[in-house]
Amino acid sequence: MKRNMRVGAILKKLTDYPGQVFTLNYFVDKLAAAKSSVSEDIMILKRIFNELDLGRIDTITGASGGVVIKPYISDENKEEIVSKIIRELEDTNRLIPGGFLYYADILYSPHIVKDLGEIIAQEFSENEIDYVMTVETKGIPIAIMTANFLNVPLVVTRKDNRVSEGATISINYVSGTTGKLQTMYCAKRSIKANSKVLIVDDFLKGGGTIRGMMDLVREFDSEVVGKAVFMENIGQNEKMIEDYYSILKMNIAENVLNVSSNIK
Amino acid sequence: MKRNMRVGAILKKLTDYPGQVFTLNYFVDKLAAAKSSVSEDIMILKRIFNELDLGRIDTITGASGGVVIKPYISDENKEEIVSKIIRELEDTNRLIPGGFLYYADILYSPHIVKDLGEIIAQEFSENEIDYVMTVETKGIPIAIMTANFLNVPLVVTRKDNRVSEGATISINYVSGTTGKLQTMYCAKRSIKANSKVLIVDDFLKGGGTIRGMMDLVREFDSEVVGKAVFMENIGQNEKMIEDYYSILKMNIAENVLNVSSNIK
Repeated sequence: MKRNMRVGAILKKLTDYPGQVFTLNYFVDKLAAAKSSVSEDIMILKRIFNELDLGRIDTITGASGGVVIKPYISDENKEEIVSKIIRELEDTNRLIPGGFLYYADILYSPHIVKDLGEIIAQEFSENEIDYVMTVETKGIPIAIMTANFLNVPLVVTRKDNRVSEGATISINYVSGTTGKLQTMYCAKRSIKANSKVLIVDDFLKGGGTIRGMMDLVREFDSEVVGKAVFMENIGQNEKMIEDYYSILKMNIAENVLNVSSNIK
Repeated sequence: MKRNMRVGAILKKLTDYPGQVFTLNYFVDKLAAAKSSVSEDIMILKRIFNELDLGRIDTITGASGGVVIKPYISDENKEEIVSKIIRELEDTNRLIPGGFLYYADILYSPHIVKDLGEIIAQEFSENEIDYVMTVETKGIPIAIMTANFLNVPLVVTRKDNRVSEGATISINYVSGTTGKLQTMYCAKRSIKANSKVLIVDDFLKGGGTIRGMMDLVREFDSEVVGKAVFMENIGQNEKMIEDYYSILKMNIAENVLNVSSNIK
């Protein structure tokens, strides 16, 4: 088999399953090639990725070693992605009476949320993470994409208790958007004890919902290692949480919207 | 720039954004290469994909032409993916009192739902589709992945009316799971008139929820071109819908679960 065939096949597999470590032997078997050839193919891929700033391929040595694609978007591409979203958000038709912004279409655009998920995953790629957690509904696409690039399961907490989830653990929290006391449920079997959890949500106003998820993680004897949101409302002064990562900041004052990037 | 560099760069871009047509000129600019070289690179990629059964690359001629990755998983891989899910589902710990099956973890495993989304997208890849529609909550990951491979927006209908969605259209429907009359809401601005919609959901019992989404699509003066579910309950005799595509069929009788594949 010619070299560019093997390089193409390896690249396709790694890109389709980011965060998953494939052993050299996996490709040796699949491509019926010598280990030394596969090893050279991977070196070529790493060089292509480095020279063209396409992404990050890590090789892990040792018994459980192999090759893996890690989340990486170049600074230039990040800026391009975020600027495009800001331009779309600045359409005045998006303002909804009551000081709200319509942005569901952005979070439901698969290629956009894929990029956003990779940006968040990259930010936390050096952390040990066992689960990504979000709360229904609008944050789910960005959270599943983040989980995809980190290759960990997603956990979705719900605002009502569903019979199909089996036993659940629940906590009460005060929603920053409505100011009301609400309940959040999470299937008992969805998180193993002593896990590390990255919380991902679409919007941060007061932080009540994320605070709720943090309390929930504690009930599972687990630890929150990061909090990330698509957009934070900086018009809201007091936040119930600190040390969070947000991609965009927004403010609506006197019916004028201002959105800007938090990406350096 | 060497050929395998260009081939790698083109493959990475196409795989990252499936369903999106990139013009030859896009790669000519990005890679600072001659059009004839890029053209040959794409021929090489097509040959790699064909010979190794890796996927499907289409080239479109004409003014709006270019190159695109279409959803494709080989029959062998499909069988492998589905068999693995069935083995996981057949764990008796998954049975929940009341004849329910816990499978949220499957639908929240990003690499699994990515494969499932591509399987559904492939099934409908010859249809003209403007939107993928689902209802919150468990179907969202598989639906966003389907939308990703078809490169169309996702529309999520909700079970409650949220102020941040702006004006909504609602319909009433009878849930197959609970037998109760429920209401489903969808943001008015989420679907343009005269659109073609693919409905994707995680589970089909009686079909009431999908029937509800079909009614909702009609309220948007649009058309349903397909219905796809991850799993159907064949223990339920009467279905309120017909002509649907399902990946798995399941039945729980006397506390014994039976799951099998619908993939030929």
